[in-house]
Amino acid sequence: MTTGRFISLEGGEGAGKSTQAKRLAAALAARGIDAVLTREPGGSEGAEAIRTLLMQGDVTRWSAHSEALLFAAARADHVEKTIRPALGAGRWVICDRFIDSSRAYQGVAGGIDDAAVLALHGFGSRGLLPDRTLLLELAPDHGRLRAAGRDGAAADRFAARGEAFHADVAAAFRRFAAHEPDRFRRIDADHAIDSVAEAVFAAIADLLP
Amino acid sequence: MTTGRFISLEGGEGAGKSTQAKRLAAALAARGIDAVLTREPGGSEGAEAIRTLLMQGDVTRWSAHSEALLFAAARADHVEKTIRPALGAGRWVICDRFIDSSRAYQGVAGGIDDAAVLALHGFGSRGLLPDRTLLLELAPDHGRLRAAGRDGAAADRFAARGEAFHADVAAAFRRFAAHEPDRFRRIDADHAIDSVAEAVFAAIADLLP
Ligand SMILES: Nc1ncnc2c1ncn2[C@@H]1O[C@H](COP(=O)(O)OP(=O)(O)OP(=O)(O)O)[C@@H](O)[C@H]1O
Ligand SMILES: Nc1ncnc2c1ncn2[C@@H]1O[C@H](COP(=O)(O)OP(=O)(O)OP(=O)(O)O)[C@@H](O)[C@H]1O
Ligand SMILES: [Mg+2]
Ligand SMILES: [Mg+2]
Repeated sequence: MTTGRFISLEGGEGAGKSTQAKRLAAALAARGIDAVLTREPGGSEGAEAIRTLLMQGDVTRWSAHSEALLFAAARADHVEKTIRPALGAGRWVICDRFIDSSRAYQGVAGGIDDAAVLALHGFGSRGLLPDRTLLLELAPDHGRLRAAGRDGAAADRFAARGEAFHADVAAAFRRFAAHEPDRFRRIDADHAIDSVAEAVFAAIADLLP
Repeated sequence: MTTGRFISLEGGEGAGKSTQAKRLAAALAARGIDAVLTREPGGSEGAEAIRTLLMQGDVTRWSAHSEALLFAAARADHVEKTIRPALGAGRWVICDRFIDSSRAYQGVAGGIDDAAVLALHGFGSRGLLPDRTLLLELAPDHGRLRAAGRDGAAADRFAARGEAFHADVAAAFRRFAAHEPDRFRRIDADHAIDSVAEAVFAAIADLLP
């Protein structure tokens, strides 16, 4: 049995996380590695129900603290029902956003201490961290243009925030990467999809069996 | 402006919390005291939506840790949107279950440390505690008979638990009361409604203006 590896993709809106998560799963499959593709918030029945609560309603529906607790609850369910069982069975897990998004978004938006966000993760998910976190970096404006081209849909509660907010989120991600250089790889997402996919694969190559 | 007081009612299923909460609100109203009657989980729009998630589904739908996080999220919303504004306006708040139910149920059912449940409450609700907590004590069997007489409805996720569980919950409530004698009053709920209502009123009389 192979050792399951846990990979997360992080970055701002429209940076290409979902696109690259799929590409990475396909690249692994081509090498005979079975990977579970999942996403947050969501990724299990209970967590998807919590996602619905989080995504609906006005940007002020939830206080920062309620929101952080809801994310932690969703993540706990996702880890318990989807991620740990897959890793336990030797499968890889590719997760579109994980704890670092909570650290960046709830931390920045809510002014919640990074230590408090991590404490909730410790409580709910026994602090599970990815083996590798791929930070896709793209100027927020550019990401928003990409996302608008994708769905033209109404901005959700998160996308509706202003420019300064998205710059703060990007800075928070860079800070996390600087503090955990073994876990993180920063990837320039401002290239064609194929070329970003190559950089993504190179950034996990050392984890391959 | 009068000082708002925050009263919670606690106890096992069918002990008479909802009945006595209404009676207490009426008794206060008769003295010209405006009281907000509320309940947990729920008591605000967001918290009621979380309540639906908590009450639906199988007894194993949520892990103990996810459940504790969901309760803390619901309580944070309830405190922020309903309880603090009422107290801030000088109104009394009568709450049918509050943090001590989480301590008893999630603590006992989930084997979660009391300190961890209180830490979540500290994070979500800045640790707000009632001025007085009325513990309605009734043998669990008796409470279940009363509740069955009330609605004949299918047991919800909590009521569906076994005998030992309910005995543990009752013991946990007694322990909390013993540790905080100023906040708690134990009330024998095995009497007629009127007579319990008198005991309830006597147990908050020192808080009246
Ligand atoms: N490298 C790229 N070059 C150009 N367009 C891209 C690139 N990567 C992704 N896209 C397109 O940009 C849009 C957003 O990509 P994607 O949905 O993968 O981003 P995301 O990071 O998952 O966004 P969100 O945060 O909104 O979930 C999609 O239409 C996608 O096809
Ligand atoms: N002192 C009493 N004597 C007899 N019946 C009572 C008494 N108090 C309440 N009841 C009845 O018992 C049933 C349960 O009471 P109630 O709903 O107030 O309990 P509860 O503690 O709120 O229960 P739950 O935990 O299920 O919410 C109701 O039908 C109510 O009318
Ligand atoms: Mg996406
Ligand atoms: Mg009741």
